[in-house]
Amino acid sequence: MPLKTPQQYIESLRDGRVTYWDGERIDDITAHPRFQVPIAMTAKDYDYDDPDYRNIRRYQTEDGGSAHRIYQIPHSEKDLADRVEMMGNSAISTLTTGVFMALMSVKDQVGEVNPQYAANIERMYKYARDNDLRAAEVITDPKGDRKRRAHEQDDPDLYVRIVDRNKDGIIVRGAKLHITAASLIHELVVMPTKGMRQDEKDYAVSFSIPVNAKGVKIINRSFAPAELNPFDYPASAHHSMPEGFVVFDDVFVPWDRVFLAGEVPLASKLAQSLGLWERTGGVVEAARLSELFVGLAQLVTEMQGKEGDPMAQASIAELITYAEMIRMGLDYACRHFETTASGMIFPNTLAINAAKYYYAANYHQTVRYLHDLGGGLVLTLPLESDLRNEESGQYIRKYLYTKRTVDVEQRMRVYNLIRDLTADAYGGWQFVVALQAGGGLVAQRTMMNRTYDMNRAKARALKAAGALPKAKAMAAE
Amino acid sequence: MPLKTPQQYIESLRDGRVTYWDGERIDDITAHPRFQVPIAMTAKDYDYDDPDYRNIRRYQTEDGGSAHRIYQIPHSEKDLADRVEMMGNSAISTLTTGVFMALMSVKDQVGEVNPQYAANIERMYKYARDNDLRAAEVITDPKGDRKRRAHEQDDPDLYVRIVDRNKDGIIVRGAKLHITAASLIHELVVMPTKGMRQDEKDYAVSFSIPVNAKGVKIINRSFAPAELNPFDYPASAHHSMPEGFVVFDDVFVPWDRVFLAGEVPLASKLAQSLGLWERTGGVVEAARLSELFVGLAQLVTEMQGKEGDPMAQASIAELITYAEMIRMGLDYACRHFETTASGMIFPNTLAINAAKYYYAANYHQTVRYLHDLGGGLVLTLPLESDLRNEESGQYIRKYLYTKRTVDVEQRMRVYNLIRDLTADAYGGWQFVVALQAGGGLVAQRTMMNRTYDMNRAKARALKAAGALPKAKAMAAE
Amino acid sequence: MPLKTPQQYIESLRDGRVTYWDGERIDDITAHPRFQVPIAMTAKDYDYDDPDYRNIRRYQTEDGGSAHRIYQIPHSEKDLADRVEMMGNSAISTLTTGVFMALMSVKDQVGEVNPQYAANIERMYKYARDNDLRAAEVITDPKGDRKRRAHEQDDPDLYVRIVDRNKDGIIVRGAKLHITAASLIHELVVMPTKGMRQDEKDYAVSFSIPVNAKGVKIINRSFAPAELNPFDYPASAHHSMPEGFVVFDDVFVPWDRVFLAGEVPLASKLAQSLGLWERTGGVVEAARLSELFVGLAQLVTEMQGKEGDPMAQASIAELITYAEMIRMGLDYACRHFETTASGMIFPNTLAINAAKYYYAANYHQTVRYLHDLGGGLVLTLPLESDLRNEESGQYIRKYLYTKRTVDVEQRMRVYNLIRDLTADAYGGWQFVVALQAGGGLVAQRTMMNRTYDMNRAKARALKAAGALPKAKAMAAE
Amino acid sequence: MPLKTPQQYIESLRDGRVTYWDGERIDDITAHPRFQVPIAMTAKDYDYDDPDYRNIRRYQTEDGGSAHRIYQIPHSEKDLADRVEMMGNSAISTLTTGVFMALMSVKDQVGEVNPQYAANIERMYKYARDNDLRAAEVITDPKGDRKRRAHEQDDPDLYVRIVDRNKDGIIVRGAKLHITAASLIHELVVMPTKGMRQDEKDYAVSFSIPVNAKGVKIINRSFAPAELNPFDYPASAHHSMPEGFVVFDDVFVPWDRVFLAGEVPLASKLAQSLGLWERTGGVVEAARLSELFVGLAQLVTEMQGKEGDPMAQASIAELITYAEMIRMGLDYACRHFETTASGMIFPNTLAINAAKYYYAANYHQTVRYLHDLGGGLVLTLPLESDLRNEESGQYIRKYLYTKRTVDVEQRMRVYNLIRDLTADAYGGWQFVVALQAGGGLVAQRTMMNRTYDMNRAKARALKAAGALPKAKAMAAE
Repeated sequence: MPLKTPQQYIESLRDGRVTYWDGERIDDITAHPRFQVPIAMTAKDYDYDDPDYRNIRRYQTEDGGSAHRIYQIPHSEKDLADRVEMMGNSAISTLTTGVFMALMSVKDQVGEVNPQYAANIERMYKYARDNDLRAAEVITDPKGDRKRRAHEQDDPDLYVRIVDRNKDGIIVRGAKLHITAASLIHELVVMPTKGMRQDEKDYAVSFSIPVNAKGVKIINRSFAPAELNPFDYPASAHHSMPEGFVVFDDVFVPWDRVFLAGEVPLASKLAQSLGLWERTGGVVEAARLSELFVGLAQLVTEMQGKEGDPMAQASIAELITYAEMIRMGLDYACRHFETTASGMIFPNTLAINAAKYYYAANYHQTVRYLHDLGGGLVLTLPLESDLRNEESGQYIRKYLYTKRTVDVEQRMRVYNLIRDLTADAYGGWQFVVALQAGGGLVAQRTMMNRTYDMNRAKARALKAAGALPKAKAMAAE
Repeated sequence: MPLKTPQQYIESLRDGRVTYWDGERIDDITAHPRFQVPIAMTAKDYDYDDPDYRNIRRYQTEDGGSAHRIYQIPHSEKDLADRVEMMGNSAISTLTTGVFMALMSVKDQVGEVNPQYAANIERMYKYARDNDLRAAEVITDPKGDRKRRAHEQDDPDLYVRIVDRNKDGIIVRGAKLHITAASLIHELVVMPTKGMRQDEKDYAVSFSIPVNAKGVKIINRSFAPAELNPFDYPASAHHSMPEGFVVFDDVFVPWDRVFLAGEVPLASKLAQSLGLWERTGGVVEAARLSELFVGLAQLVTEMQGKEGDPMAQASIAELITYAEMIRMGLDYACRHFETTASGMIFPNTLAINAAKYYYAANYHQTVRYLHDLGGGLVLTLPLESDLRNEESGQYIRKYLYTKRTVDVEQRMRVYNLIRDLTADAYGGWQFVVALQAGGGLVAQRTMMNRTYDMNRAKARALKAAGALPKAKAMAAE
Repeated sequence: MPLKTPQQYIESLRDGRVTYWDGERIDDITAHPRFQVPIAMTAKDYDYDDPDYRNIRRYQTEDGGSAHRIYQIPHSEKDLADRVEMMGNSAISTLTTGVFMALMSVKDQVGEVNPQYAANIERMYKYARDNDLRAAEVITDPKGDRKRRAHEQDDPDLYVRIVDRNKDGIIVRGAKLHITAASLIHELVVMPTKGMRQDEKDYAVSFSIPVNAKGVKIINRSFAPAELNPFDYPASAHHSMPEGFVVFDDVFVPWDRVFLAGEVPLASKLAQSLGLWERTGGVVEAARLSELFVGLAQLVTEMQGKEGDPMAQASIAELITYAEMIRMGLDYACRHFETTASGMIFPNTLAINAAKYYYAANYHQTVRYLHDLGGGLVLTLPLESDLRNEESGQYIRKYLYTKRTVDVEQRMRVYNLIRDLTADAYGGWQFVVALQAGGGLVAQRTMMNRTYDMNRAKARALKAAGALPKAKAMAAE
Repeated sequence: MPLKTPQQYIESLRDGRVTYWDGERIDDITAHPRFQVPIAMTAKDYDYDDPDYRNIRRYQTEDGGSAHRIYQIPHSEKDLADRVEMMGNSAISTLTTGVFMALMSVKDQVGEVNPQYAANIERMYKYARDNDLRAAEVITDPKGDRKRRAHEQDDPDLYVRIVDRNKDGIIVRGAKLHITAASLIHELVVMPTKGMRQDEKDYAVSFSIPVNAKGVKIINRSFAPAELNPFDYPASAHHSMPEGFVVFDDVFVPWDRVFLAGEVPLASKLAQSLGLWERTGGVVEAARLSELFVGLAQLVTEMQGKEGDPMAQASIAELITYAEMIRMGLDYACRHFETTASGMIFPNTLAINAAKYYYAANYHQTVRYLHDLGGGLVLTLPLESDLRNEESGQYIRKYLYTKRTVDVEQRMRVYNLIRDLTADAYGGWQFVVALQAGGGLVAQRTMMNRTYDMNRAKARALKAAGALPKAKAMAAE
C-alpha cells in the first residue's frame, strides 16, 4: 500500500464519520470552515516530497516498504534522535498516532496473558502503518464521582465498558474526554483510563476502531475560531486542533481489533504505556517552545533598546535556564534509553517524567518573565487591518518606530507572537496544556517516586549518616 | 447639571469622535457591534437608580449636588471604604475617571509653581464631575528607543510634546499607548509619562481635552470579539473594554485646560500621582479575582468528589493564602491612609505597592494551582450550542454527570468560567494585565524602595548587630 | 503575692528539677554554664522596673494586683496591640506562658462537659499569674508509627496516657517532644497532641504540673554552645533557649490540676486552642525578623557602594514585600479579632494562619535574597579575636575598608549578624523553626481550609459563572 | 618525583607558613587541634593505595609518571567522566588544585601575548603535578567601594597590585578573600578578580607562589569548631575546611612564576578561566548533595510510617526533580564538551552555568521540602551523650521508637544528618556556598546570556512570527 498524498488523506475523511461542533452536525468536515486549519496541518505531514522534511518524515520498514516515521519502532539512540526530530516537526494529529508505539511496547506482556491480543496489536500496527493511517490516543474516561470506582458510579457508563460480548466481538458503551484530533484521524485507539480491580472486569477494555464505526460520535471544541489573520495570530492562525468528546454509543468491536477485554491485571499496564510517549511529546514541544520564549524575549528587549538593562538580562537568563534544563533532560532521556525484552527502546522513564514535570510545574512562572519583558504593548498593539488602513496606518508606523535597525512590521509580528503564544486564546490554552497534557503534575510525580533509584539514594544517605555497617557502606558507593 | 441616564451617556458618544478598529473608521460607535459590550458596561454605571448600587454609586458633593462617587475626594477611612466598595462594582471605564483624583492630590504642589494650573485642575474636576463625564488616564508614550531620552529620539514626536504655543493655548503632537476605554469616555486627561529634564521642556505637558477634539484619533484593540455566548464565556461576554492607541495630531489645547506646559520639576509628580490610584484599582480587582479563584477551585473540586483529597486541599489553601494576603493588604492600606496638606486622604503608598506587587509577582504561579485542580476539561468542554443540540446534548448530559448533587449545566458553567478567566483570550489578557497594569513590577519595586521606612530598619539591624552606640540603640526601638 | 525579681526567678529554679544535657545530669541549672544565656533571657522579663519596658511588661489584674502582661486576657483591640508589643519584646520562655491564654479561651467549652475542669483551669491560671510563674506549652507526643493511632502502637506509651486513676488524681506516663524552655519555667502545661477517638480515652489528657514533680525528667538540646562571642554572634550570643525532651515517668497529677481525663471530644479543642497563640507568636517574630532582613540587606548593600545597583534594589524590594505583607497580616489579625462567649478576644484565626503560612512557606526563598546580597564574606569574615590581634588586625582593618563613611567594625558586625541569623547554627535552626513552630505547613493549610468563608466564595463564583438563580445571586454580593 | 604519602603531605605543611586563627598565630598547623579535620581530609586524597579509590585518584602522565588525576588534562569524554568521578570523591583542598586546569586552558591565548608567560604556566603545572602539590584558587579581591574601579579606591591596595618590578621579578601587595584551604595547600595561584582597563595595568597580575613565601599571611575562618561528635554531626565532624583571608604584604614573585603582569586584555580571560571549573565542581557537589536529600527525605518519611502520605510523596518528588535535573545537566555538560585549540576539552560552558544556576537559585526552596518532611525533631533530638547516659538513654530509646523495622540509633543518625547538612552551622554555610561558590547568581546569568545560541533562538522566533524572509526562514530551521 503506497503512502497517501495530502489530497488522499483529505479524501479519506469523507467516510461518514459523525462530528458535532457548535451545535451543528457536520457531515463532511473537509468542506467546513472550522476544519480547514486542522486538516491542512495534518495533511502537511503527508507531504512526503517536501525537500525539508522528507528524510525526517519517511523511513523504510522492516518489510521493505516506506512508512511515516511515527511508525518506526526505535532500536537505537539514532532512531530515537530521528524520532525526536520528526516529532518537533509534525502536527499533533500525527503525533497521536504514536499510540501504536505504546501498544507495541507492552505487546510482549499482553501476549503472556493472551497471545491473540498480542497478535491483534501487531496486526493493527501493521495495518495502520501500511495504510498510512493516523490514530488518536483515546484514554480519559469521564470518571463521574472521583470518590467512587468505575462500577460504583450512579451511572455504570461513566467509564467505558463492555456491555455485551458475543462470538464476533464486543459491544462497548461510554465516552472518552480530551481526545485530541479525534475527527481528523482514522483509528480511535482506546485504552483503559487506569488500573481496574477484579470486580471491574467490564471496564478493562482496549481496542482500535475506525472513526466512522457505527455508534461513534465526536463533539469538538477548539480554542481557535475558524479563521485568524496570520499577522495578528502568527501561531494560532496555522496551528489549532480540535479536542474531541468521543462517545461510544454501543459500538461493536470485532475480536480481531480487541487488545483487552476483562483481564484486569493488564489494564494499568496499557494505561501507563501511553504516558511515557505522551510526555516525551510534551518535552519535545517544551524544548521548542522554551527556545522560542528566549528568542522572543531577546528580540522584544533589543527592539526597545533595552538589551543593556541588567534586569532584562536577568529575566532572559531565567528563560535560558528553563530552555536549557529542558533540552538537556530530553537529550539525557534519549541517550539513557530503556529497552523492552524484544529490543524496542524508549526514552528513559525517570528522565522524561522529571523533564516534563520541570516544564509543567514552572511553565506559568516562566511565562511571567516574558510578560514582564514584553510590557503592555503585547496586549494593546493595533491589528494588521489598522496598519493597512492608510489613515490609521501612518500613525502606527510613526509611533511604533523605535530605531533605524528595527522594522515596525517585524516588531509588530514579534509582539503578536508573544501575545498569541502566551496571552490570548491559544496562550491561555497552552498554560493548561503544559500542565495537563500527558497527565497532570501528580501523574508525573508518581512516576518519579516509582522509578527513582531509591535504594541507592537511601544507602548513600545512611552511609553519610554513619548509619550503615561498613560492609554495606562499601556497596553503597 | 443633573446626573446622566444610561441613555444620555450613550447619546453623548455621538459627538464626532474619530475611532478606528480592525481597519475601519467608525463614525458612530453606538451603532457598531464591536462597541456594544463596552458601552453597556459603561452605561450601567450611569444607572443611579439601581437599588443594589445607588448608595454606593452616588454621593453628595460639597456643593450640595449629586455626583458619581468616583469624584468624591476622600477625607476619612469611611470615604475610602465606600470608594473601594464602589470600585469593586464599577466598570474600568468608570474607574479611569479617577485620574481626577490623581490631579487633585497634586494640585497644591502644582499651585506653588503656577496657581493658574491649580485653578485649571480644580475647574476641570468640577466641570467633569458636574457634567457626569468619564475620563481616561492618558499617560504612556511610545518611548521609541529606551536607551535615549525624549528629545534624543530619531523622531522628536515619540513622546507627546508641545509643538507650538500661542496666547490661546498650546499645540500638542504625539501618541499615547494602552489607553483603556479611550473611545468610551469624554475627557482624555493627559499626563507626562515620567520625569523630564531641563532640556525636555516641551515634553513636560499635561492637559485635559475632549475625545472629539480636532486631531485626536483613537485606534482600538480588544481581546474580545464583538459577541460571545455568556454560557461559554461567562466573564468576557459581559466584560471587555477596548484599549486605545491615541494619536494627537497637532491638537490645540486652550490654556484653561492646561495643567503643565514646560515646568519640568512637576512632570514626575504628575506622572507618579496616577500610579497610586491605578494600583489601588489593581488591588481592588485582585481581591475580587482571587476570591473567585478560591470559590472556583473549591467548586470544581467538590463537583468531582475530590474535596477530601489532601493535594486538592493543599492547592486550595494556596489560593486562600493569596486571596487573604491581598485582602489584608488592601484593608491595611485604607486604614493607614496618608493625607495631603489640604486634608485629602489616599491609601497608604507602601501598602498599596506591596500588595499590588505581591498580586502581580505571584499571579502566574497562583493560577497554576487552579489549572492543576481544574484538569483538562477546562479546555475540552463542549460548547453550549452542542449541549442544546438534542443529539449531542444527550451525550453531554449523560457523561458530564458526576453525582446527584451536581447539576451538569452548573458544572459546565464553572469550568467555563475557569477557562474564560484564566485559559482563554480574556484569561491570557489577565496574565499581562495583572503584571503590567499600573506600571510593571519594576515600578512597584521602585516605589517600595522609596517609601519603606529604611532608617528604622537600618537602625534596628545595627542595634541587633551590636553596631549602634547605646544612645542611638534606644532611639531605634 | 508580689511580682518576682530576676533574682527571685533564678532562685526559684533551684527546686530539685531533673535536667539532662550532653550526658550529664544537672542538679542546679543556675550554676551550670550551659544555662547562663537562657536564664538571663528569662530573668530579664522579670525586670519590671526597666524604664523601657515596664509599661509593656506589667498590667493591673481585674483583682487589682499587678502581673506580667502575658497573663492579661485581652478584651479590646488595644489589649491585643499591647500584647503584641510585649510579645515582640519578650523571651520565648515568657511567651510560652501564653499557654494559659489557650486554656482560658476554651474554658467555657470545657465547663460544659465538666465544670470541675473549668474551675481547675481558672484556678491554675490565677495561681500561675499571681505567683508570677512561667509555663511551657507541652503538646507534641513522640507518635511512633504515624500510620497507627495512639492505642495501636507497639508501645502504648508513645502518646502520653493515663496509666492509673484514683480518688486523689491520675498517674500519667509518656514523653513530649520539642518543649521549648521546659527546664527554665515552673509549670508544664500538658495538652493532647491531637483529637482522640472513643477507644483512646486514656490519651485524652491535659493538666499542669510543676517541673520538679516526681517522675518528670527533661533532656535538653540547643543549637548554641554555652558561650559565644557577641561580636561574632550578635544574635545567638544573647538568644538561645534549650528545647526539652520531657519524660513523664509515672507522674502523679492531683485532680485539681487536671483539665481533661478521658473526655475525648474535648481533646482536639484543647489541642487546637494552643495553635492560634503559638502562630500569633510566630507572626510577631516574623514581623521583627523580616524587618531586620530589610535593614541588613540595605546596610550590606550600601556598605559595598552598591545601593544604586538595580538588581540589588530589586532584591531589597522582595525583602520589603515579605516584611510588609507579614506586618499587614498581623495588623489585620489584631483589628479583626474574634471573641469568645465570655468576651475574651483573640486574633483573627484565618488572618493569623494565612500570615504564618506566608511567612513559613516563603522563608527559605526570601533568605536567598539576603544571601545573594551578602556575598561570600558572610561566611569568610575573620573572627573578632583576629581583629583584636595586632598583627592580623591591621590587615583586616586595611582590607575590609570600603569608603570613608563605613566603619570597618560596624561592617563586620553587620556581616556577622547576617551569618548568625541565616547561615550558621542559629540561622540553620531558624529555617526549621520558621516552618515547624506552631505546627508545620499542613497545620496552617488545614486551618485556612476550615476558616475561610467558603460559602461566600462559592456563591460569588457561581454568580460570576452565571450559575446562580437570580435570587441567590443577589445574596451572594 | 614520586607521589607523596599522606604522612609526607602532613610533613610538607611544616614549612614556616604564617597562619592566624581565633587571635592566635599558629606556627605549626599540623600540631593544632583546629586543623586536624582539614588536614585529615586533605591527606586522605594522598592515599594512593586505597583500594576503593586508587584507580580514580591516580593517572599516568604523558611523561610516563604517575600523578593525581586532578592534574590530568582531559582529551575525551571518558577523561571527563573519570575526572567527575574523582571530583565526587575528593576533598575540596584537592579540587582547588584544578586551578592549573584553568591556567592550561588559556595557555594558548596567553602565549600569543607573551610566550614566556605560557612557558611559565606549563612549567608550574608540571612542577606542581610532579611534586604532587596542592594549590588554592586565589581570585577575589576585597574590592572596597564597588562603585569605583581598582585604581579609583581610597586605598590603592584594595585590589592586589604590582607595587614594584625589577629584573628578577615583581613585588605584589594586597589581599584575597574567600580562599578555601589556603593554609592547607602548597601553591597560591593568584588570578585577577575581573577584567582590567588600560589605566589599571598594575592590577592585571597573575602568578603562583608558595604558601610559605615571605610576606604571605593567612587569617582563617571555619564554620566548624575543632572537634565534633560524628554521631551528632555526621557530616561536619569529618568535613570542614577553613576559608582564608590571604594577605600579600609586599611579596616578591620571581619572573618564572609570573603569568601576567600588566597585559590588561588577558586579565578577564584569566579571571573567567577559573569560573567554569569552579562551577563544574559545584555541579558535581550538587549532584551528590541532592541525591542525599532524596535519600534522607525518603528515610525520614519511612521511619515515621508516612511513606503512603500523598503530601510526603509529592515533596519527595520535588526533591527527585531537583536531583535529576542537576544530574542530567552534568551528564550533558560532559558529553557535549568544548575543545581548545590544542585539544584539551572542558565541560560545556552553557550547560554547566545553567545547571549550576538551577542548583543555586533553587537550593533554598528545595531544602524547604526536606525541612517540611523532617519536622521539629530535626532540631530537638537529644545528643549522643544523652543517649549513652543510662538514665536519659533509656527514655530516648523508648520514646524515639517508631516500629520494629526501625533502629532508634539509625533514626537518630538520619535526623542528625538532616540537621547537620541543612539546619546547623554546616547547613547554614551550605546555603550561602550553594549560592556564592564559583561566583554568585549574576555571574552565571551573565555567562548564560553570553553563551546561549541567541542567533538561532532569534531566527526561530522571527520565523514563527512570520517576520523572516523565506530564504532566511529556511536557514533558521
